[in-house]
Amino acid sequence: MTFSIPSTHPTDILDNMLSPSDILKHVCSRWGARILITLNQHSSLRFSELRSELKNVSEKMLAQTLQTLAHDGFILRDAYATMPPIVEYRLTLLGEELAGHVGQLVQWIDLNLEQIQQARNQEVATPDIPQ
Amino acid sequence: MTFSIPSTHPTDILDNMLSPSDILKHVCSRWGARILITLNQHSSLRFSELRSELKNVSEKMLAQTLQTLAHDGFILRDAYATMPPIVEYRLTLLGEELAGHVGQLVQWIDLNLEQIQQARNQEVATPDIPQ
Repeated sequence: MTFSIPSTHPTDILDNMLSPSDILKHVCSRWGARILITLNQHSSLRFSELRSELKNVSEKMLAQTLQTLAHDGFILRDAYATMPPIVEYRLTLLGEELAGHVGQLVQWIDLNLEQIQQARNQEVATPDIPQ
Repeated sequence: MTFSIPSTHPTDILDNMLSPSDILKHVCSRWGARILITLNQHSSLRFSELRSELKNVSEKMLAQTLQTLAHDGFILRDAYATMPPIVEYRLTLLGEELAGHVGQLVQWIDLNLEQIQQARNQEVATPDIPQ
């Protein structure tokens, strides 16, 4: 008697279940948002080009964030068997739609940052606890 | 010779400086996003009403997130000296604008969650490392 072992165990799928909050966290993370917005401004970018566009991102953090966004279906990784091998990243159609929304939110924050900062400085000057 | 000590020390302001990434983190956090969206559907809500709308949020987490969003200038806290005292929360004009953008992003994620989940399940079935 033989058993066939499925290549994907059902618990893998359950472990892999995401809530909207998880996705929101991925796409609004410091590097997640920047990767989406930067790739949306180019047809495709190599790892090194993306790293130089983003500035200050470590190789490890960029690789991890790209992997998360690729797992969510927002980014495609194209590997060409050239010598040396070329790997390019680009947005999927889903990723392009998403990048539009994230871009609008980030643009709004940029435009209103001064006003937000003023609100915070006022809080420092007038703390919650009455003196 | 006397020195007047300013009520707000310059380093308080520097400690208080925010980047767009910080704001993005506040407004896209699990409860930050929900608070903005929920308050945008009401003119104002008491703490207990907000807590019951959000479900599963602890008192501490709700209070902390409200404080962060109030510090950023997105939420107003109105306290009425009644017996018992009434405290209500509502969005500022800045908060209303922001809640619109966050709401659109969350709505997009909700609408596309099935497609995103499918992408992730496919990744589980076909892992990165060739077998």
